[in-house]
Formats: sequence, structure tokens, C-alpha cells
Amino acid sequence: MVEPANTVGIPLNHRALLKDELDIVIPTIRNLDFLEMWRPFLQPYHLIIVQDGDPSKTIAVPEGFDYELYNRNDINRILGPKASCISFKDSACRCFGYMVSKKKYIFTIDDDCFVAKDPSGKAVNALEQHIKNLLCPSSPFFFNTLYDPYREGADFVRGYPFSLREGVSTAVSHGLWLNIPDYDAPTQLVKPKERNTRYVDAVMTIPKGTLFPMCGMNLAFDRDLIGPAMYFGLMGDGQPIGRYDDMWAGWCVKVICDHLGLGVKTGLPYIYHSKASNPFVNLKKEYKGIFWQEDIIPFFQSAKLSKEAVTVQQCYLELSKMVKEKLSPIDPYFDKLADAMVTWIEAWDELNPATKA
Amino acid sequence: MVEPANTVGIPLNHRALLKDELDIVIPTIRNLDFLEMWRPFLQPYHLIIVQDGDPSKTIAVPEGFDYELYNRNDINRILGPKASCISFKDSACRCFGYMVSKKKYIFTIDDDCFVAKDPSGKAVNALEQHIKNLLCPSSPFFFNTLYDPYREGADFVRGYPFSLREGVSTAVSHGLWLNIPDYDAPTQLVKPKERNTRYVDAVMTIPKGTLFPMCGMNLAFDRDLIGPAMYFGLMGDGQPIGRYDDMWAGWCVKVICDHLGLGVKTGLPYIYHSKASNPFVNLKKEYKGIFWQEDIIPFFQSAKLSKEAVTVQQCYLELSKMVKEKLSPIDPYFDKLADAMVTWIEAWDELNPATKA
Repeated sequence: MVEPANTVGIPLNHRALLKDELDIVIPTIRNLDFLEMWRPFLQPYHLIIVQDGDPSKTIAVPEGFDYELYNRNDINRILGPKASCISFKDSACRCFGYMVSKKKYIFTIDDDCFVAKDPSGKAVNALEQHIKNLLCPSSPFFFNTLYDPYREGADFVRGYPFSLREGVSTAVSHGLWLNIPDYDAPTQLVKPKERNTRYVDAVMTIPKGTLFPMCGMNLAFDRDLIGPAMYFGLMGDGQPIGRYDDMWAGWCVKVICDHLGLGVKTGLPYIYHSKASNPFVNLKKEYKGIFWQEDIIPFFQSAKLSKEAVTVQQCYLELSKMVKEKLSPIDPYFDKLADAMVTWIEAWDELNPATKA
Repeated sequence: MVEPANTVGIPLNHRALLKDELDIVIPTIRNLDFLEMWRPFLQPYHLIIVQDGDPSKTIAVPEGFDYELYNRNDINRILGPKASCISFKDSACRCFGYMVSKKKYIFTIDDDCFVAKDPSGKAVNALEQHIKNLLCPSSPFFFNTLYDPYREGADFVRGYPFSLREGVSTAVSHGLWLNIPDYDAPTQLVKPKERNTRYVDAVMTIPKGTLFPMCGMNLAFDRDLIGPAMYFGLMGDGQPIGRYDDMWAGWCVKVICDHLGLGVKTGLPYIYHSKASNPFVNLKKEYKGIFWQEDIIPFFQSAKLSKEAVTVQQCYLELSKMVKEKLSPIDPYFDKLADAMVTWIEAWDELNPATKA
């Protein structure tokens, strides 16, 4: 049986890596008791809490954490009419936190994610592993069979072209989950008892040209490199779809990373995912997405950005045009989504004015 | 410290999977004492031993193994003038074994590969894992973050298109190595003491469009699906290059698998690789390959086969034409290699006449 790690007695990490360059973004509707378990690893960092749902509710944050909290009223006040691009009653609202951050790196985590144990029983410092992933290069142009070649004890294997060994900058680090796997509603319904107990001790680059299902539960990225593409779309209240927020972001992010020559890694670190969401509720949120993704995936697989698109913003705006043109015929929702993508970039640029070089 | 597993006392595997449908191909220049350790797992299977070097030497095979053995005289006798496509004084000669086999599956292993232990200390039945890999589908069109979705305890994650979950047939299973990693000469020279001690408990599909460095040390494949593309090229005696035999096969195989919609898996099983080869000798064999691969990889990355190429043979002959046209300018060697590719297919078809449907 897999159980979360016990972190009581683990001393606070005073040599926290990138302490002043990283924000932790947490979307929530409840008190953040889950942070107690993360205290040894996360307390040195600044938190950006995005409160979803009723803004009059008070969210309790365990003592000793440094944080700023935004509820819907704050989002509306800060973004004005552009607040329409931020989802409500859906964890997609987390991307507001990416926008208001002023740091280079973001780690985002769900409030039902606990500290995992590695096979030796040691508590996994997920953030530390994400930072390692982000700080060392990716190798998207050729597959390395011994996984991350930059990791201690590993390297590029025979036959790996030397010209590609420098790698490229890593924009995204996608972490995994022990216990409750991130399954869709149909799979949850079919396999209600399935638990992920396999700890795969690997980090790898997702090759160029290959899309992946990016889960927002345990995710880190370089805001400077890819931030404006980390838009979690229109989900939840008033929208015909949910639980595709992180998927949408992942498809856009991967296409843009491939275009700009940036790397996306997946694998370690694991978190312990404590609670399966209700598959019936999930099915209601997902069913249009399950249907639509059969067209969306080929769309993203064949999406080609122009040579003129050299910034993330330019890439994202090009993508929004393609979404309007190619996906709107599926459902008017995509027309709205394409507009929201533009609004998101406008809002991003407003809150993050370009600094002079 | 990593040590090979002790298999003494492990009973012979009487329920050997695919016993009558699989041949084990071993290239060697020495007595096959290493088979003693593999006895519990491999004795039920038929061996094809390809003896390299001096044909007058006698190779001893441990008692109880069922085998056929071919030395250079046999190869010359069986293939006549076409024997020129089979390398001499290089383990590339192993591909002759693929050609004379009449079975559906091949497992090939080097004679310095011992039985590995998994993290629980249990001896790894490498062949059994290869067979599992080959018998379950691959998923080359979209990345699954929980690795092989067909494995017990795993599945496709949220956001994986349902239309792609049936997967495609698996043509190749590429296994890995504990202890001595498969490094090129420069890396061996720089890191003489590096040992691979990380057991990564995963099997994954290499995505479509991504090339990988295929190592021939611990490899299985479906001969019916991809056999004629498993040509290990011209290496060793009289050739300007060595240690690129498996790489060459891997590049060709991957391009053809991608074209035909077949899957290539890598990861488990591990073998225990006992002995590092001499890096100075290796450097001499490799240095032209290290240089040439900088052009060869882009060539294979952009190689597009025609719609008319629907069999492996047709694909391979198209590829040989492209090699002649695009790689010969690098060195006359590629002209010779392109011709040998054609000879290989002719020899394959001679030994494996098409059966009526």
C-alpha cells in the first residue's frame, strides 16, 4: 500500500533553491491545511493563492507561510473587463497567479497533493526536483535511451549526435502522481480501485513534435521562457467543458516550445495524490472534451507557426487565430476561447510590461 | 555496487512463452559459457549462433542447449556472392542469424551480457519481458505520461485521445543495461568509472518521428513485421567504421516503423553488461561514425518514404536509393553500403521466399 510521507521532524529547508526567483501558485476553495505536510520544503517560498468560488469565504493558511491571496473580486478589480479570460469555479483560475507573479519560475500544485515517498521511504522534495529539471537542459531532438543524460550517473549513450548534446533550455517540468492516477472519467469508472504504486525513477524530455497530456496538479515552468502560453482556457462556470484546462495549456505550450526550440520534461518528481474526484461529476465536465479532443489533437499536431513568431506572445496570438479558423466549426465555444486567448495575452502584457533590454 | 544475479537454483522455465516462435541470435568469437547463467530462462529456446572470425576455431556451447551454428564458411556457402553484405570480424554479422531464422520473433544478446537483478534482488527474465513488450501494442502518436499504458496497474491518462488507445503493433523491444552503460569511446574515456546503477521500472514507446540510438546488445523484434530492415550494415574487416552496426539498423528501422505505423519500445528489460570494451580500440572504430552521424541523423530525420512503399522490403530499397543519392557525397563508403542494402534484401528474399496468402 502506498501512503504519503510523514514530514514531521524534517527540518525546514533553509538553503531553499531559487527562493527569491520562484512563486508557488495554488488554486483552492478550502483551507490550506495540506501545506502543513509541505512545510519543510515549501515554507521558504512565496505563495500566490488563487481563491476560487465564493469570494466572501475566508481561506485559512497555516501560520508561517508567506503569501498573497486573490479572490474573484481581486481578479475583477485588477483585470477589469479582461477578467473574462479567467475561469470561475474551476481550478483553471490558477493561471491568474502566473500572470500576477513577478518571478522567473512557477511551481503550481493542487491542494489534494501530499508529499510522496521514494522507494527508500524518504519524503520527496518535489519542488527541489522540479528546479533541477528546469535548471538543466532538455534534449528534444533525439531520444536518449538512458533517460535524462544530464543527471548524475547518466549520460548520452553511444550513437547520440555530439552536436545535440548541449541540449536546449527547459521551459516546463511536468511531475507525476502516486496513489490516485490522473485518469479521465471513463477510466475512473472502469477502474475505480486502480492506484499508481510504480515509482519510475526517471526524468525525460518529451521529443519535439510529440504532444502530451499536461496535468496541472504538479507542474513547474520558466515564466520568462513560456509564461504567456500557460493559459488554462475557459472552463467551469458558464462554459460547456471542464477538466481540459491543463490539457489545453499543454497542447499550446508544446507546440510553442517546439517552435521556439525549448524543452519539456516529464517524470520525477512524484507527489502523493490523495483523493479521487467524483467520476460522475467529471464525466459531465469532460464529455464534450473527450469528443472534441479527437479533432483538437490533429489540429495541434499539424499546427505550424510562422518564422515571424519569435516571442511566446506572437506564437500564442498566431495560435489563437488558427483556433478561431480551424476549431470554431466544431463548436462556437472555440470562437469564444480564441478571443479569450487574445484577451489573456493583452492582460499578461498589461501586468508584465516589457522591460528595456 | 551492482552485481549480476545468481541464477543457480532457479528452475528451468518449462512454460517458456513463444517457445516455438522465437529464435535467440548470438554473435560470438568465444565459448558460450555466459549461457550457464541464462539457462533457467533461455534453455527452452532454440539458439542461432553466428560465429565471427576464424571459422576453424571451435565454439563450445554448454550442454542442454538446442542450437545451430554458422561460421564464415557457412555464410559464404549459403549466400554465395551475396555473402558480401554480411560483415566479418564485427558483431554486425549477427544479422545473418535474423535471415536464416524461420521464426516470427528474434531475441539477440551479446555474450558479455549477464542476468540482471531487479531492485528486489530477483533475477530478471529479460526474454520474458521482451516478449511482453512485443505482444502488447505501442502508442507512438501521443505521449503517455504514465509510460506503458498496457502494463498492469497503468493506463492512458486523462487527455489521451480515445481513438489512439488501441495502439499499433509493436515491432521492436529495446532493452537496457545495468553496470557498464553503452557509451561511445569519448564518453568512456571521460567517464571510465561510470556504472549504470539506476533501475528505471518503465517501458515506453518511442514517439513517431523521433530517432533513437538502438543498441544491439539486448534487443528483440518481430521478424515478420520488421525483419528485412534489421540489417546491421557493413562494419569491421575491410570497412572504415565499426560500432555503428546497430545504430544504422536502428535509424533505418525507426524510419520504416514510422512509415508503416509500427511501434518501437524501449526500457525494461535490463541485462547486466559485464565488461567495458577498450575505449582506445573503440575510438578507432568509431571516429568516422562520430563525424558522419552529424550528417546521417538529419538525413534520416528528413527521410520520407513514398506511399507506394508498403512492405518492409520496398521501404528498405527506397531507403537504399536515398542513401546512395544523399550520403555517398560524404564518403564512397555509403555507395558501397547502399549496394549492400540491396544485396541484403535480395539475400533475405532468397532465404525467405514469400508464402502464398
